[in-house]
Amino acid sequence: MTEPMAIPLNLHPDRLFHSDPAQRAIARRLYAEVRDLPIVSPHGHTDPQWYADDMPFPDPARLFIVPDHYIFRMLYSQGVALEDLGVPRADGGPVESDPRRIWRLFAQHAHLFHGTPTRLWLDHAFHDVFGVRERLTAESADRIYDQIAQQLETAAFRPRALMDRFRIEKIATTESPLDLLPHHQKMRASGWSGPGGRVVTAYRPDPVVDPEFDGWRENVRLFGELSGEDTSTWRGYLNAHRNRRAYFKDMGATSTDHGHFTARTSDLPEAEASALYAQALAGKLTPREADVFRGQVLTEMAGMSLEDGLVMQLHPGSWRSHNPSLFRTFGRDKGADIPTATDYVGALKPLLDRYGNERKLTLILFTLDETSYSRELAPLAGHYPALRLGPPWWFHDSPEGMIRFRKQAIETAGFCNTVGFNDDTRAFMSIPARHDVARRIDCRCLAELVAEHRMEEDDAREVAVDLAYRLAKKAYKL
Amino acid sequence: MTEPMAIPLNLHPDRLFHSDPAQRAIARRLYAEVRDLPIVSPHGHTDPQWYADDMPFPDPARLFIVPDHYIFRMLYSQGVALEDLGVPRADGGPVESDPRRIWRLFAQHAHLFHGTPTRLWLDHAFHDVFGVRERLTAESADRIYDQIAQQLETAAFRPRALMDRFRIEKIATTESPLDLLPHHQKMRASGWSGPGGRVVTAYRPDPVVDPEFDGWRENVRLFGELSGEDTSTWRGYLNAHRNRRAYFKDMGATSTDHGHFTARTSDLPEAEASALYAQALAGKLTPREADVFRGQVLTEMAGMSLEDGLVMQLHPGSWRSHNPSLFRTFGRDKGADIPTATDYVGALKPLLDRYGNERKLTLILFTLDETSYSRELAPLAGHYPALRLGPPWWFHDSPEGMIRFRKQAIETAGFCNTVGFNDDTRAFMSIPARHDVARRIDCRCLAELVAEHRMEEDDAREVAVDLAYRLAKKAYKL
Amino acid sequence: MTEPMAIPLNLHPDRLFHSDPAQRAIARRLYAEVRDLPIVSPHGHTDPQWYADDMPFPDPARLFIVPDHYIFRMLYSQGVALEDLGVPRADGGPVESDPRRIWRLFAQHAHLFHGTPTRLWLDHAFHDVFGVRERLTAESADRIYDQIAQQLETAAFRPRALMDRFRIEKIATTESPLDLLPHHQKMRASGWSGPGGRVVTAYRPDPVVDPEFDGWRENVRLFGELSGEDTSTWRGYLNAHRNRRAYFKDMGATSTDHGHFTARTSDLPEAEASALYAQALAGKLTPREADVFRGQVLTEMAGMSLEDGLVMQLHPGSWRSHNPSLFRTFGRDKGADIPTATDYVGALKPLLDRYGNERKLTLILFTLDETSYSRELAPLAGHYPALRLGPPWWFHDSPEGMIRFRKQAIETAGFCNTVGFNDDTRAFMSIPARHDVARRIDCRCLAELVAEHRMEEDDAREVAVDLAYRLAKKAYKL
Repeated sequence: MTEPMAIPLNLHPDRLFHSDPAQRAIARRLYAEVRDLPIVSPHGHTDPQWYADDMPFPDPARLFIVPDHYIFRMLYSQGVALEDLGVPRADGGPVESDPRRIWRLFAQHAHLFHGTPTRLWLDHAFHDVFGVRERLTAESADRIYDQIAQQLETAAFRPRALMDRFRIEKIATTESPLDLLPHHQKMRASGWSGPGGRVVTAYRPDPVVDPEFDGWRENVRLFGELSGEDTSTWRGYLNAHRNRRAYFKDMGATSTDHGHFTARTSDLPEAEASALYAQALAGKLTPREADVFRGQVLTEMAGMSLEDGLVMQLHPGSWRSHNPSLFRTFGRDKGADIPTATDYVGALKPLLDRYGNERKLTLILFTLDETSYSRELAPLAGHYPALRLGPPWWFHDSPEGMIRFRKQAIETAGFCNTVGFNDDTRAFMSIPARHDVARRIDCRCLAELVAEHRMEEDDAREVAVDLAYRLAKKAYKL
Repeated sequence: MTEPMAIPLNLHPDRLFHSDPAQRAIARRLYAEVRDLPIVSPHGHTDPQWYADDMPFPDPARLFIVPDHYIFRMLYSQGVALEDLGVPRADGGPVESDPRRIWRLFAQHAHLFHGTPTRLWLDHAFHDVFGVRERLTAESADRIYDQIAQQLETAAFRPRALMDRFRIEKIATTESPLDLLPHHQKMRASGWSGPGGRVVTAYRPDPVVDPEFDGWRENVRLFGELSGEDTSTWRGYLNAHRNRRAYFKDMGATSTDHGHFTARTSDLPEAEASALYAQALAGKLTPREADVFRGQVLTEMAGMSLEDGLVMQLHPGSWRSHNPSLFRTFGRDKGADIPTATDYVGALKPLLDRYGNERKLTLILFTLDETSYSRELAPLAGHYPALRLGPPWWFHDSPEGMIRFRKQAIETAGFCNTVGFNDDTRAFMSIPARHDVARRIDCRCLAELVAEHRMEEDDAREVAVDLAYRLAKKAYKL
Repeated sequence: MTEPMAIPLNLHPDRLFHSDPAQRAIARRLYAEVRDLPIVSPHGHTDPQWYADDMPFPDPARLFIVPDHYIFRMLYSQGVALEDLGVPRADGGPVESDPRRIWRLFAQHAHLFHGTPTRLWLDHAFHDVFGVRERLTAESADRIYDQIAQQLETAAFRPRALMDRFRIEKIATTESPLDLLPHHQKMRASGWSGPGGRVVTAYRPDPVVDPEFDGWRENVRLFGELSGEDTSTWRGYLNAHRNRRAYFKDMGATSTDHGHFTARTSDLPEAEASALYAQALAGKLTPREADVFRGQVLTEMAGMSLEDGLVMQLHPGSWRSHNPSLFRTFGRDKGADIPTATDYVGALKPLLDRYGNERKLTLILFTLDETSYSRELAPLAGHYPALRLGPPWWFHDSPEGMIRFRKQAIETAGFCNTVGFNDDTRAFMSIPARHDVARRIDCRCLAELVAEHRMEEDDAREVAVDLAYRLAKKAYKL
């Protein structure tokens, strides 16, 4: 009678499979082949310090709520103040600091997440990682808080132990060229991970690529210092990239990542590119010119990828920090990034004209504009040797989002032009949940093809393993 | 042997549920919880005179065909002349006036509606409202005509009796600021409905907001007269809105509605807005400036909503009267309004920058461009406290349209950022059918989540009642 | 023991039907009604010489791989050189010429087609046309090659014999106005087909309509010679169209086809159109003016269709030859055509303003931009008497593409505003497969409506026959 109000929390073994018995039976068989495969996480935003220092995670609120914009944006949309959820203010002003109060406020609003992937991830983490067996409500909030908090203090819940438990074979973090990669260096020195090890970095040069990024000019100056190149010239700037790419590669990086507002690429003559760079340094670019400049750097990055073998990722189409008053108060990445319509066919043409037929180049395309799946991305990836399609991203990393991707992209692109799943997350505890959702949905989609006699089950079994493990490893050279 | 050719008309109790037995069983249980809930109809275009005068409806043709563009547009697309369907000409020229001939012509073409929601609504009204038990064909046309016509003459088929039978708890009509609301006044005086009663108005100011509306300048003059404000100035024009909004609120209105071509909003300094208004009065706006002006009024309306509490609705994206020769002959609303691609992320930014974080404001967004569901609307509504998503609208008020909305919007926006169903109809007899379709489809979608173990059935039951009843009542303050 | 490694190739009788038993049972019954109906193929790109000369088809590689961009684009996307697949170079340079080696290379990559419609078509042709009973793999490649090659030498596998076996009642080819139609003349002279016969032509004037087409001016000169009209003037140019349309009509054509980059139409005063034409002849059009010119010709074509009764087809939205280096080496139609976002509502307005209300005109709209189905095309076709919707086209001629079309277009357009299926193929062996996929998917979609009690099965049976046979015959006047 210690939990009189407890509402049971179940993770059903058939969850996310279609309820039709014929499809479900096939999905179960396929899933059995991939459920326990190691996790390859080639793109994400976890903190490398976790792995380097292997210190305990903080309290449940700071673990699950405060840093997760998937969660606090939903509460904010329903009138909850971010201050009350402990989200730090840019000016250091007061916000709620009692983790238990933050947790309770979240628990009171748990029903907002019905039907969302966030709910699936949370339930999975509560149930499988922490052994919680009752649903989170205002009534159960304290009990669940305690249950999680106690375990977080134990050795079995430190990052490296959880990595083992989660069967994470490889994970990439994402760093700026200005980052000295101390945590990756520490891992390398310790012999635990290091280059070619379990934790690798990825080269995300947006802070030195985007002239509209806060502090870009200062960033470019530092970039020169770090690389020993003269970044006051276009040629020196490009060499600085070469230098830092080599350093990142030395720290295990196999990929670069580019988060531009559009997918525009440019292929200017060197003199024009150089002049544009000089204008940028002088702070004189129009918004359109800034986009041309970013697009020029993308094409240069593709050329360098041909040289050094780093796989290139493009994540366009997010209007970052759409809410200016929220941005002033709380800064970036606070759930106010909104997707917009994104063209690829015209935008990528300059880069593709130059490098699209290169078999040694891999450019992985992501989108927040699902209309491009069948219209643009699948036809492009189904033709150009250099192109591959990334999995459904961000808002579309969800059961329905994944189903739409499979139904809209595969008939034209084939499975072979996709790269498996990546979790793209900062939320360590959600990693097994996210990969499990992807594996389940992929098996469900394959089971539908098999049950409808569009594919044989033996072929589907091979594809399931490709999607869960082999494609990511191969595409990202991990 | 009185009906030798009769083909039976059935309304199956499981209609619109998925045929998978597991999903269907759950859908039945959920639907049993919501089937008999009262109807809240917060947005529609029925004629308030019906409720005020409670006179019998006209003959079957004038009830079902002549005023319903969903119906006559389909026949027109297949070569039937609108004149032959009794649609009145703008010039008063001759059109078919024999309702039985109109009815027969319609019946000959009933097969055109296979697979359309119109067919579902008609069959529901024929079967449940009028007790028809045979399908409409050329052969059965006269019998069904007689069956309906006879009942329409009885007391049980007058508007108020049907309102009771349909369990309509609340219904909003839509009126122009230039409307004196005589029918609402009459209802109020009679004590039958009136403010806070069953029939309320809604403030639809397009005729005085859109400088490209026929007769806008004359409308603005009348607007000044009615409100006692000097609408030759921007400030007076805004005060006229305040005045008429207050009057509408007094007549029960809880909402405003805005049917713009784009979702553009503006937030100009007062001097600029004032100058633009002067230009508009002078008839000197370019199309782009007219759009800026409409967008400015939207932002002003949001500000007034913060003052007076009226919920704001935005219905953008319809190219009205796309067919000029049809427009010349028959006027507006003749089935020739065509949706176009609609941007929200950039368009709404001026308004959202100013009022998006207001918890006291509710701006309900509708769309005819389904690509915006997952890309723009759900991320916006899943962040801004002021935003909510309206249900699938117009062409998308259909089983597949509703399923797409649920699958594309909910994973990001959650159910909590939606506002339930509204029927948006002029066709009184279709109201129970439309709400029934929505309730069935919502239960079907929830049943799918439950059957696939993405949601527990006890939670789904609560959500079903929210979607059928509570969300609309709360969002529209009814 | 002759085929020790053989993996069986099955065509399941229930393939492409939903696996839910209730839906499947209905789908089977509906499909039984349409499975054996004759094939009407009103739009395609097969070679009329096949039918005129009735010579054997070449070897398996030249039959299935070398001419089929659906196939070689996928191998190219995975790094296979087109030269190694025997695709001819524009400069006549060396490419693989051994059909067996081409076939083996293809067989090694057969797994790339999992989940694609190409795989369904190939398996169907292998199994049903050639009696192959093992799946194509590197191991089985030679055996299957031999099995097909031997049969191709027999009389039963000549084009006319296969036409009979495939039950092709009518097939249209597509020719340029500059084509003298010798094969159609030969068929006519032989009495085997000819005008009104089984093989008809269609008028595809792009080479003389598009000023950006290679050699347009020379084409226009030849156009004048062939027609005996003075194509140095706008009026003469239009008369040349009238002349060649009449000739094509005499050779059985019932339709024209227009493959423009956009759906833009224009309706210029004659003097302006004439001046624009003069500019075009002088090679002085900007890209925008070229689009206006193409749009003007579309409107003129609609006017001529009203005169001569030819049905008009518009296929917009493909960025042809997106890959310039591939284009230089191999020429057109090499799998590098990429769809782009396509507007119809504004683009078609000039033509619709002039001819949209004509009941005697049929303009069939196709799209590669699926977002237009529910937003633009269905509302347009559900209103304008002149408009009909073509079936899912090219990349969308696939099971999921067809399901999306049915779900997104029918609720608004109705089945009556669609025109059945067309295969649009150059691949003769795929014709029965493509029509079979369409019939199965249509029956599946109808079965879903019946199983969910949205349509009665007797009505669905009529619609199934319409979709498989009657609508195409009627819309194309065949």
